[in-house]
Amino acid sequence: MSKLKRTCTCGQLRLKEVDSTVVLMGWVDSVRDHGGVIFIDLRDREGITQVVFNPDTANKSCELAHQLRSEYVIAIKGKVAARPAGTVNPDLATGEIEVLADELEIFNKSETPPFEIIDNSNVSLELRLKYRYLDLRRSEMQTHLIFRHKVCQTIREYFNTRGFIDIETPVLTKSTPEGARDYLVPSRVNHGKVYALPQSPQLFKQVLMVSGFDRYFQIVRCFRDEDLRAQRQPEFTQIDMEMSFVDEEDIIQVIEGLIAAIFEKVVGKPVNLPFPRLLYQESMASYGCDAPDLRFGMRIQDVSHIVKESNFKVFLETINSGGQVRAINAAGCGHYSRKDIDELTEFVSQFGARGLAWFKVEETGLVSSITKFFPPEILQKIQQHMNAKAGDLLLFVADKEKVVSQSLAHLRTHLGHKNNLINAEEFNFVWIVDFPLFEYNEDAKRYVALHHPFTSPRSEDIPFLEEKPLEVRARAYDLVLNGVELGGGSIRIHSPEIQKRVFRLLGINDNDAYQKFGFLLDALKFGAPPHGGIALGIDRMIALLLHLDDIREVIAFPKTQKATCPMTEAPSEADPQQLKELGISLA
Amino acid sequence: MSKLKRTCTCGQLRLKEVDSTVVLMGWVDSVRDHGGVIFIDLRDREGITQVVFNPDTANKSCELAHQLRSEYVIAIKGKVAARPAGTVNPDLATGEIEVLADELEIFNKSETPPFEIIDNSNVSLELRLKYRYLDLRRSEMQTHLIFRHKVCQTIREYFNTRGFIDIETPVLTKSTPEGARDYLVPSRVNHGKVYALPQSPQLFKQVLMVSGFDRYFQIVRCFRDEDLRAQRQPEFTQIDMEMSFVDEEDIIQVIEGLIAAIFEKVVGKPVNLPFPRLLYQESMASYGCDAPDLRFGMRIQDVSHIVKESNFKVFLETINSGGQVRAINAAGCGHYSRKDIDELTEFVSQFGARGLAWFKVEETGLVSSITKFFPPEILQKIQQHMNAKAGDLLLFVADKEKVVSQSLAHLRTHLGHKNNLINAEEFNFVWIVDFPLFEYNEDAKRYVALHHPFTSPRSEDIPFLEEKPLEVRARAYDLVLNGVELGGGSIRIHSPEIQKRVFRLLGINDNDAYQKFGFLLDALKFGAPPHGGIALGIDRMIALLLHLDDIREVIAFPKTQKATCPMTEAPSEADPQQLKELGISLA
Repeated sequence: MSKLKRTCTCGQLRLKEVDSTVVLMGWVDSVRDHGGVIFIDLRDREGITQVVFNPDTANKSCELAHQLRSEYVIAIKGKVAARPAGTVNPDLATGEIEVLADELEIFNKSETPPFEIIDNSNVSLELRLKYRYLDLRRSEMQTHLIFRHKVCQTIREYFNTRGFIDIETPVLTKSTPEGARDYLVPSRVNHGKVYALPQSPQLFKQVLMVSGFDRYFQIVRCFRDEDLRAQRQPEFTQIDMEMSFVDEEDIIQVIEGLIAAIFEKVVGKPVNLPFPRLLYQESMASYGCDAPDLRFGMRIQDVSHIVKESNFKVFLETINSGGQVRAINAAGCGHYSRKDIDELTEFVSQFGARGLAWFKVEETGLVSSITKFFPPEILQKIQQHMNAKAGDLLLFVADKEKVVSQSLAHLRTHLGHKNNLINAEEFNFVWIVDFPLFEYNEDAKRYVALHHPFTSPRSEDIPFLEEKPLEVRARAYDLVLNGVELGGGSIRIHSPEIQKRVFRLLGINDNDAYQKFGFLLDALKFGAPPHGGIALGIDRMIALLLHLDDIREVIAFPKTQKATCPMTEAPSEADPQQLKELGISLA
Repeated sequence: MSKLKRTCTCGQLRLKEVDSTVVLMGWVDSVRDHGGVIFIDLRDREGITQVVFNPDTANKSCELAHQLRSEYVIAIKGKVAARPAGTVNPDLATGEIEVLADELEIFNKSETPPFEIIDNSNVSLELRLKYRYLDLRRSEMQTHLIFRHKVCQTIREYFNTRGFIDIETPVLTKSTPEGARDYLVPSRVNHGKVYALPQSPQLFKQVLMVSGFDRYFQIVRCFRDEDLRAQRQPEFTQIDMEMSFVDEEDIIQVIEGLIAAIFEKVVGKPVNLPFPRLLYQESMASYGCDAPDLRFGMRIQDVSHIVKESNFKVFLETINSGGQVRAINAAGCGHYSRKDIDELTEFVSQFGARGLAWFKVEETGLVSSITKFFPPEILQKIQQHMNAKAGDLLLFVADKEKVVSQSLAHLRTHLGHKNNLINAEEFNFVWIVDFPLFEYNEDAKRYVALHHPFTSPRSEDIPFLEEKPLEVRARAYDLVLNGVELGGGSIRIHSPEIQKRVFRLLGINDNDAYQKFGFLLDALKFGAPPHGGIALGIDRMIALLLHLDDIREVIAFPKTQKATCPMTEAPSEADPQQLKELGISLA
């Protein structure tokens, strides 16, 4: 190691340190030779300091300094000096000083990097991931990861000071059938047997409540064997918490307080509490989805009851076969060309819509190629109902509820972005509440849990659990930020009888239930308290707080489909010898 | 949920709260009926409060209270009252008060638990793990886990306030050949390919240093596919840190400060800094191992140079064939019977020792069945060298160095416990330093890294790296507490050339090195700073701080060989359907 001992960072020196002797260590950000005097910008995590090697005062070091190239790692010792008049750099925190070096030590050289270590570069994600160690050197990425660190720190401080206990749950867990997206882990020591990686610590945290821990939290890694997307990694981290003797309000309050703390301490702006709440049914009706972006309006309106009085066959047939006709008002888009509208039709076709009916709103009323099928009073009713004025464009989808919702939900977001209706600086939080407990899966021909099978029904709905399962409301809540679901939670079932009734409705008989969730069912028999909790995806939230679309911008070593980050590439070929030892063969 | 709203915990109420109305929620710890008045001890995480149901003042609740049994979960509302004279319980923090209940709500009933929820119970570990949710309800286990929580909190606060950044490293990593104890994780999405679970984030944290993060820490899960033991879980958690521009002293100081913080804030007693340091060679010589328990003496002495003047064939032959004779003085054990000594001989035979020679020290000198082979002046020299006095017992092992060291190291610890030489309350920390960089593996017929291949040799030893590899010292350090290695670390190699030279000495040619560690080798080419770090096993440390031998006492959901904790049992049979989807078949 060096004889030199680092005295400060490259972000630290100011005018008041002038004349003191310092040792800095870091990377050469740039080198300039002005008539034999070498100027380097020296960089570390904390900033950049200008270092000067003058042949008149430090000949030997200056000679060595001629070797310096970008990304060399060095130590310098020197005296802090005020920069000469006219050379102060107001963009740099250390811009009023420079260090006149008289010692230089080169720790390591660097080959020419494949891309410059600067922000806002145009380098492809693939190249950035291939050289992640260089990409992470960019101050942008350092800022992201330090921001993430501070968010985690704030989360932990928040829970620590409120009586929550941080308890680690296992990563190698018992595999259960039905874990369709579980990663399985064969064991060498126990040949022929496997562990499973958890999709969430749900059962563990419920057991901790049965154990009387009262308030649990964890920032925890979870796993899901699914295709990669920009917003999804096969391993992801969630803020996980659970509380005993609480109801929905308690959980919501704790989480709102947490978000407020993150805004105050890390984001540096306030957030308005409480967050608004939106009923699930209302969200589906007005936004076509359960994670609406409320930074802009353009609500979806049901016009089925109006257009059924028209003569437009497409609408009538849809309504008569149990479908619906809903519409959005693209305000101010009345000037859209036929081509524009064709593009929108193409866009909604991705979501199953077979067409996109439209009316332009003119001073005289609604105009379209299909106007002739609509009596004037119906056109008027539509215009009124859609709150449309001249210059607007009304867009209709007629289909089964699911297709209409999905098509219009995406169309709404698409138009919101296209027409700059969204304030990118706004953070819009909303709780979605009163979810149904079950939905009916047409493919499987059975009820499935909208959240998970441990979610408690509302007590007033328990009497008709078996008779009208689709009307039973769950004690569940999702938190949505800017149209992205951060996560959700619920009050859990703490009665073993109700848990069994819910399992039966889900087509899981008592035997199967015991096979799969016996540990929990047993635990519920021995005095389970009322309890509930929530899990929030931390990287999604952090990406949104930093106004980033891709969570790989906030993860040090993410996975990519293209297998370019060599340390974490999408799974690689296994060594045959290792497979043999594990007793596995791969198809 | 209840109409009642919890106002305080069961550990909170004191005389000053008398007459206030409170709502408590928790578990029925015990029920007593005194002539129709029902007394219950109500328990939650924070403590126990006595609750009284009196038929004269709260008839309805009292009637319901007759149903209460141990571990029922309830809410009560009532008024705090001072306990009548003579009924104060000084053992209970709330022992001066009781709550006169007038409302009772039963949240959940409980079957009779398979064991009582009390501390110091005799229940087998198997039963405790089977009903872990009940076992964790015991205040002992809650104390352990809350202690662990506080240690983690202290660790994070310590690093947070010292400029360390908490960065998450992947759990699903690239598999590399030679990861003999790696768990492999086949991917469903990428058929035929696998991830590996990391044995440590070593490469990732080094890359983070290359990226300029300067100071990194993480409390991180690691994985090793090995047999279970009381001290070892297949997944374990370590305190992991790495710093740039530092030497050994910097790392050691940071860790000593961390331990001091844990003692001050969690253990509640001071610890003496700095910890002593022991050279590896000295530790091996005096204690036969590199993780010595220094809470007692009984150092091992080499007597080869003395006994080679004797006529005792066993010793002479051993020395002549390159072996050694070393001994310990079991002070005060001169009274040991033949049977006692036979037991010790049996004990050391586990470690390969073919015998255990001995001398009893009497006023007249050394006495043994083998005395006749030793001239009096040799006996005297032995006694002097061993610092032996009348009443002591000298025990000798003659064999190859490895057998002698292991036998005497274990014998020393065995006698330390047997003779109560160890103060169980003492926390004895020591750094072991100056490890060799390599050792020669007789089986593999090659050099292997004593720590790992990224450990830096001392700069003064680099010139003879290839000529005398076994004499090269590593810049490595281990931290040992009470004879248990908590972990270790090193200054790493930051020069790509030296890294390649070390790989070559380890029998890894440049191609193989690139195959296995290409990402690191590439990273080193682009300006790696000098850096080093350490990793410490957190559960081992916490178990020791709590004076526990079994780390399963400080882990909520541990693994056991006997597969009894149903949520974490040693890996279980896989579902054939899942295996099929994964494209795996198991031998």
